[in-house]
Amino acid sequence: MLEQLKQQVLEANLALPKHNLVTFTWGNVSAIDREKNLVVIKPSGVDYDVMTAEDMVVVDLFSGKVVEGSKKPSSDTPTHLELYRQFSTIGGIVHTHSRHATIWAQAGQDLIAAGTTHADYFYGAIPCTRRMTQAEIQGEYEWETGKVIVETFQKRGIDPKDIPAVLVNSHGPFAWGTDADNAVHNAVVLEEIAYMNLFSRQLNPGLQPMQQDLLDKHYLRKHGKNSYYGQ
Amino acid sequence: MLEQLKQQVLEANLALPKHNLVTFTWGNVSAIDREKNLVVIKPSGVDYDVMTAEDMVVVDLFSGKVVEGSKKPSSDTPTHLELYRQFSTIGGIVHTHSRHATIWAQAGQDLIAAGTTHADYFYGAIPCTRRMTQAEIQGEYEWETGKVIVETFQKRGIDPKDIPAVLVNSHGPFAWGTDADNAVHNAVVLEEIAYMNLFSRQLNPGLQPMQQDLLDKHYLRKHGKNSYYGQ
Amino acid sequence: MLEQLKQQVLEANLALPKHNLVTFTWGNVSAIDREKNLVVIKPSGVDYDVMTAEDMVVVDLFSGKVVEGSKKPSSDTPTHLELYRQFSTIGGIVHTHSRHATIWAQAGQDLIAAGTTHADYFYGAIPCTRRMTQAEIQGEYEWETGKVIVETFQKRGIDPKDIPAVLVNSHGPFAWGTDADNAVHNAVVLEEIAYMNLFSRQLNPGLQPMQQDLLDKHYLRKHGKNSYYGQ
Amino acid sequence: MLEQLKQQVLEANLALPKHNLVTFTWGNVSAIDREKNLVVIKPSGVDYDVMTAEDMVVVDLFSGKVVEGSKKPSSDTPTHLELYRQFSTIGGIVHTHSRHATIWAQAGQDLIAAGTTHADYFYGAIPCTRRMTQAEIQGEYEWETGKVIVETFQKRGIDPKDIPAVLVNSHGPFAWGTDADNAVHNAVVLEEIAYMNLFSRQLNPGLQPMQQDLLDKHYLRKHGKNSYYGQ
Repeated sequence: MLEQLKQQVLEANLALPKHNLVTFTWGNVSAIDREKNLVVIKPSGVDYDVMTAEDMVVVDLFSGKVVEGSKKPSSDTPTHLELYRQFSTIGGIVHTHSRHATIWAQAGQDLIAAGTTHADYFYGAIPCTRRMTQAEIQGEYEWETGKVIVETFQKRGIDPKDIPAVLVNSHGPFAWGTDADNAVHNAVVLEEIAYMNLFSRQLNPGLQPMQQDLLDKHYLRKHGKNSYYGQ
Repeated sequence: MLEQLKQQVLEANLALPKHNLVTFTWGNVSAIDREKNLVVIKPSGVDYDVMTAEDMVVVDLFSGKVVEGSKKPSSDTPTHLELYRQFSTIGGIVHTHSRHATIWAQAGQDLIAAGTTHADYFYGAIPCTRRMTQAEIQGEYEWETGKVIVETFQKRGIDPKDIPAVLVNSHGPFAWGTDADNAVHNAVVLEEIAYMNLFSRQLNPGLQPMQQDLLDKHYLRKHGKNSYYGQ
Repeated sequence: MLEQLKQQVLEANLALPKHNLVTFTWGNVSAIDREKNLVVIKPSGVDYDVMTAEDMVVVDLFSGKVVEGSKKPSSDTPTHLELYRQFSTIGGIVHTHSRHATIWAQAGQDLIAAGTTHADYFYGAIPCTRRMTQAEIQGEYEWETGKVIVETFQKRGIDPKDIPAVLVNSHGPFAWGTDADNAVHNAVVLEEIAYMNLFSRQLNPGLQPMQQDLLDKHYLRKHGKNSYYGQ
Repeated sequence: MLEQLKQQVLEANLALPKHNLVTFTWGNVSAIDREKNLVVIKPSGVDYDVMTAEDMVVVDLFSGKVVEGSKKPSSDTPTHLELYRQFSTIGGIVHTHSRHATIWAQAGQDLIAAGTTHADYFYGAIPCTRRMTQAEIQGEYEWETGKVIVETFQKRGIDPKDIPAVLVNSHGPFAWGTDADNAVHNAVVLEEIAYMNLFSRQLNPGLQPMQQDLLDKHYLRKHGKNSYYGQ
């Protein structure tokens, strides 16, 4: 079942080492079939160089139970499921410990929009979540991780379609998109701007967000009904 | 038409990923035929690994209209055209979001001449443009980007032949040269010195421009009528 | 003798340049046969691209004498032997001058647990040893290096199984593990977190260790009897 | 003539891009035949991927005149010759603009011995030369560059055999060694320690030189009559 989606999720997972976003088997990508409410996700602990489409695991969106697949789904599956349940417009999710996004997550700081590279993909600052409570950590931790991401977007009034990534405090990034490939694309851009902002702020310690007009221009020329841009 | 120029522009575009100056399809290179007043430029949104010379788009220097090519020209075309119109000595232009040049652009700071690597190619500081106004951003934005670059060079009395690059504030670099290949060469050097100056200033927070004598020596031994240098 | 262990040690040594942990012939990996009390270690000064399993040297755990092998064992052998003698649960050791771990060793500072990447592998800060005394340096230096590592773990009450790495002051890292391959795995992670912490602290100069609850959760979901995690 | 030396110089030059020490045709390596007082050096402006042993240029140590070769010798030849004339124990020289050594040269600062990686190759701080005078720059500049290097070593009482590299102020590094290959080896190590010291000092702004005892131990176990070390 879902052979095409499995192939897409496989290819998106294989794109992670290609883009230098992961070390060893770190990182995982999933995608959802919104009609069937089924999620396809990377199996746990399989090396990228032997991974096949058949290794992908199919999980029920609501129960979290494995519907197909002989391998164990990624341990981060409950986080993915919570995001799919609450962010109804997203089709793919990627989690990595990519170096520079993780640097910001470890520092516990938002990634402000400081240039047009950011504005071409993210319509404002990429938020860093609050620290999780003892109860959240000791409870259903991976599910709670998803909930604290959702809380962050709701409290700040951010539409996950406009800011398709988050930094989980003391942990690392999640990115998402219309499908698995698009989620990886956003994860690559996130890493790029995480690198650049680190050093722009070194040069200019009081670095401020870019002008709202410029953010609007770059984001809106590529997204939404008046978009016209391709590079 | 312009088959040779298309081939040169293709090769210059393909040199961008080779030199690690671009991610995905970011970046674009163009070149001009000064006799015909025609500009050849990368098409919009085409992957580097499938791009052919036939994909290059021919655009009229003054009207900006497509003269040949089935694809849409790069959205940055109006910026390129403005530079070709105002900087009559340049033959090729490249735009990238290369990491370290962009870091300086995001910080809104000039790249001072701090060593002979810089002096071998750029005869003084590489300027960062002022922030654009709301009217410029909401108007013919890509054309206005070209105009603010030209304004920067005119106000500071810089000859674009002597300083073949600029940092566009909150955005990224443009570099140019005698032809497309030379423009890419300058973009590579720009990235190199952007990296080095970042950390030279970390070591020496009060980093000053190099001695004028040394700048003169290195620039003039490689450029102009008394040049003699090759490494 | 010990053909299988030699092959493992060879492969672990060859993994060092593959993971960009070494320059030239720097670095060395060993493994121990706990039943025979014999250690297999890289020979001294042999290039990685011509190294074979037969080049590996077999050394007696207690006497340090070469039991088999025509080449000279790594000059760091006495350090490895001291660690195997005092840390009875470890099966493999790796020493490198990997860039970012060495940066911390040169700075003489511990690597605090600042995020879950760290917590997935190391149960707390990775210690930096004290400076060695003149007597230690001028005496049996390589053996004394092992002794100062052991002293560091004993004085701080650290179980080497929980923190499988150390930074030797003004020198560089040693990492270990259940076998040679696992030791290299830990050395790769060490380098990764050394890179990330460097810049997390740049962003947040007062960077503190992560919450103990989160450290517990991540370490214990991957290690020990209640572990359940794979990515 | 000097076919073997030409081959060595060719291979040493080709090692520069392999070790990521150069961009484009930047950088040059030479070696000397001390019996014949002839220097073999890279030609000027030839791409690394088409360079052959026959392209190497043979130059007279004292007159600087080309003795054999159809190409122009590297413009930096007078600097190489001055070093060979004054530093009688060296057999090969390399000049690059390698990123991190150049960062220190641009900052005008010595590279102190901060760890054993440094001590394994350089017996103390690698000096940065003073700024050159107007007269030196406007005179026989490339020769004067050699003279200011020699002056630096003489004034500080440094034996070029013990510290086989220098940072030329506002310019970049020269390294040397017993032959061309050894000079490149030292240039690689120089780049490595230039990278590490940059960030060790970021972590520890008051970074001091390592203990003299440790410097002695590491340098002397690898160099001189009591050496015993190989890694």
